[in-house]
Amino acid sequence: MDIVIIGTGNVAFVLGRLFRNSGHRIIQIVGRNTSAASELAYELDTDSTNYWSLINKTADVYIIAVADKVIEETTSELRLPGKVVAHTAGAVTRDVLKNVTNHYGVFYPLQTINKNSPPTTDIPFFVDGADSFTKDTLQSLARSISSHQAVMSSDEQRLKLHVAAVVVNNFTNYLYSLAEEFCAKENIDFRLLMPLIRETAMKISDNHPEDVQTGPALRNDVDTINLHIKLLDNHPELRKIYQFLTENIRLHSQGFPNK
Amino acid sequence: MDIVIIGTGNVAFVLGRLFRNSGHRIIQIVGRNTSAASELAYELDTDSTNYWSLINKTADVYIIAVADKVIEETTSELRLPGKVVAHTAGAVTRDVLKNVTNHYGVFYPLQTINKNSPPTTDIPFFVDGADSFTKDTLQSLARSISSHQAVMSSDEQRLKLHVAAVVVNNFTNYLYSLAEEFCAKENIDFRLLMPLIRETAMKISDNHPEDVQTGPALRNDVDTINLHIKLLDNHPELRKIYQFLTENIRLHSQGFPNK
Repeated sequence: MDIVIIGTGNVAFVLGRLFRNSGHRIIQIVGRNTSAASELAYELDTDSTNYWSLINKTADVYIIAVADKVIEETTSELRLPGKVVAHTAGAVTRDVLKNVTNHYGVFYPLQTINKNSPPTTDIPFFVDGADSFTKDTLQSLARSISSHQAVMSSDEQRLKLHVAAVVVNNFTNYLYSLAEEFCAKENIDFRLLMPLIRETAMKISDNHPEDVQTGPALRNDVDTINLHIKLLDNHPELRKIYQFLTENIRLHSQGFPNK
Repeated sequence: MDIVIIGTGNVAFVLGRLFRNSGHRIIQIVGRNTSAASELAYELDTDSTNYWSLINKTADVYIIAVADKVIEETTSELRLPGKVVAHTAGAVTRDVLKNVTNHYGVFYPLQTINKNSPPTTDIPFFVDGADSFTKDTLQSLARSISSHQAVMSSDEQRLKLHVAAVVVNNFTNYLYSLAEEFCAKENIDFRLLMPLIRETAMKISDNHPEDVQTGPALRNDVDTINLHIKLLDNHPELRKIYQFLTENIRLHSQGFPNK
């Protein structure tokens, strides 16, 4: 397919490379950030512009890979009748693009995306479209660059997936941050924890997380919990999180009220 | 070395295999659970007993791989003068073994250990000992079965490592559990999140977690946060955790008070 990418952030770079590697043609990069747009265009051997009036109208698909908050503003003047136009956000309604074209949709990658990571076909894509032509086009595009893709035909379903992603990615990463900060202050090499972090994530490929939960909170080992809390005297943020999560794991194991 | 393993849980199985694979001789398994002791002894081609009076006194090293809570009780009558004796607990004091021998110590694997996982040299070991003979013996034993090991010469240092392990393992796994429960109730395939979970864990091999934090909490995206919270109406436990962690990520990004 012939594709125009609007946006120059991490998602734009990663999608651009995946599309190119799968034999699609990127015919233009559109972005307000001229230098980022040129950089991506150069890498993909294509043109770039920061003028909306110069947008190439001949593509099959237009991918809006800009920050969630500016999707509406970015596309308010955009009119691409007859073209397939999709944004890449998990938590933004599909209909935000309804004035741009009749073939509007969503092309949502469920992954933490960084332009410096090597291209991978391991990013699950969830597509949605206002009509079946849009859905089919986007799903076929997803299939060409990924080994996992599905149609997720409502804003609410996609938003649910987004909540789950926040929990396993943003919240988990926050815990990693706190652990790293703690180790730095206590002169412990945080790298020593990497095998444990990796194994914790890999283990649930073959097990329900609930079945492999361990630790002092689960077994209500008050002596160890108290030793830990005392040790966290100089780490008020981590102590607060430790106490809260320990209490909730304890409640969870007893059956959370109204769960 | 000639080794006796006391205990028949996950750690006993995994250490037994690692020792055997590295050319050590397991000369006995000692355990109250007769069938588990026989099973492990059979696998390691050695003997087992559940009688303390029949414990083999000719080993170089005795590994006490029983639950934290019963280390004291298990070893209260045990006397192995001149032998190296170590427990495997992160949060139990070294001195709990001081009546057993003068060469007492700790042999702590920093990993979530399951006897059904394939043996790996990727488990970091932290050793401590009452004297340098004990430390040297245990460190050389650790070196023979692992590519990462260090002396951690105090209960407090080991306990700090244990706190960090609880944060990145137990707390993270609890978040995975909540996400899986949420997906099950909402008819979303939790497996779809596995690439994201793996990438979140792998990403911090090359990045500080703080530098790769993303999401609505960090950017204080109140609209998305409110959409998420509304969606969690029927998931009170996850909603509570979501609100708490979102609030703390927000505070963290603004510099946690007295951090």
